[in-house]
Amino acid sequence: MSQSILDQLSDVLESRKGASPESSYVASLYHKGLNKILEKVGEEAVETVLAAKDAERAEDKSALIGETADLWFHSLVMLAHLDCDHRDVLNELAQRFGLSGLDEKAARQQQ
Amino acid sequence: MSQSILDQLSDVLESRKGASPESSYVASLYHKGLNKILEKVGEEAVETVLAAKDAERAEDKSALIGETADLWFHSLVMLAHLDCDHRDVLNELAQRFGLSGLDEKAARQQQ
Amino acid sequence: MSQSILDQLSDVLESRKGASPESSYVASLYHKGLNKILEKVGEEAVETVLAAKDAERAEDKSALIGETADLWFHSLVMLAHLDCDHRDVLNELAQRFGLSGLDEKAARQQQ
Amino acid sequence: MSQSILDQLSDVLESRKGASPESSYVASLYHKGLNKILEKVGEEAVETVLAAKDAERAEDKSALIGETADLWFHSLVMLAHLDCDHRDVLNELAQRFGLSGLDEKAARQQQ
Repeated sequence: MSQSILDQLSDVLESRKGASPESSYVASLYHKGLNKILEKVGEEAVETVLAAKDAERAEDKSALIGETADLWFHSLVMLAHLDCDHRDVLNELAQRFGLSGLDEKAARQQQ
Repeated sequence: MSQSILDQLSDVLESRKGASPESSYVASLYHKGLNKILEKVGEEAVETVLAAKDAERAEDKSALIGETADLWFHSLVMLAHLDCDHRDVLNELAQRFGLSGLDEKAARQQQ
Repeated sequence: MSQSILDQLSDVLESRKGASPESSYVASLYHKGLNKILEKVGEEAVETVLAAKDAERAEDKSALIGETADLWFHSLVMLAHLDCDHRDVLNELAQRFGLSGLDEKAARQQQ
Repeated sequence: MSQSILDQLSDVLESRKGASPESSYVASLYHKGLNKILEKVGEEAVETVLAAKDAERAEDKSALIGETADLWFHSLVMLAHLDCDHRDVLNELAQRFGLSGLDEKAARQQQ
């Protein structure tokens, strides 16, 4: 089974821990610390809100797609920095909505 | 292949369009309109930031998981309300990071 | 000299410290604690941003005035809760912009 | 009667309208337009929230004072850009709390 994009991205984020701050944008965020990462989450949330207001009147939704990608990306960096697993977030959503997939993490860990 | 949790959740969100506002929380959000949905995105972003600050000093990260789930959930509602596909957001992330999976949407549409 | 509105409001906020949570909205916010106050600051910031986007296309700016009042109000509650003086914020602005009025607080304290 | 710091600052903000974007930070913000100004309001709100969380555990509150000044400053730029009067915000607060000072603007306009 192919690994989902969020899983692959989380693996990338995990692999950049401990790297020198100059080596990548993610490594520089880890190095600057939690406040900087959370500033970015907040910034991207506001930019998403603004893009959504503009998207309501526009044909082209690509700015909203890009800002939402930024928001999800920086929230993944936040989770990685705090040693949280993004699959716990997905499982929380699955549980709330009665979706299948709750064993996803357990299955992975048995491999 | 099992459908991912985000795909299943997006299907749920799509299915609640046009339903009466009293029928579910999501239907009531659609009915209240974009500003209300974006207020929730903003609120949940701030609550995520606060939970992350508290998580830095705590063993238990469940509040952060729950707030991040709220943030992702309301951003999915926003995308659905504006007729955007969450897979475009994932594909944007895949493209930026050179991950595989870019054909996910195309594959689905051929089914 | 008449006391400014922000000074009067800060006096009101100070006077509600220690009151029972049921006695007023401000007392209930103090009682709920810093996270609740900061959630309100964040919420009102997003509502201000949304009102500003709508104000750009509207004759009537009263929603924007009301949301900005909410934002300033909750930031004053935050300052009071953390025992900070709102005049330090004004003096910081005066200093940055070379405005007169820097001795306002000193003058008051000599009374 | 000496003019308040917010009045003086609003006069400065008004005077920078129409100036070339290179002439000052405020002129560059006006030139970039409403979305950029609102991004700054949102950013400063998040930085204020983070500084308040840190201030709860610190003796030194100067970072919180500085971030709150940034937040109020950028909300004044927003009001000026949308041709709103900051005294309407103060009068709204005065009205809600039964404070004196409601005639402040009328008095000024008669001068």
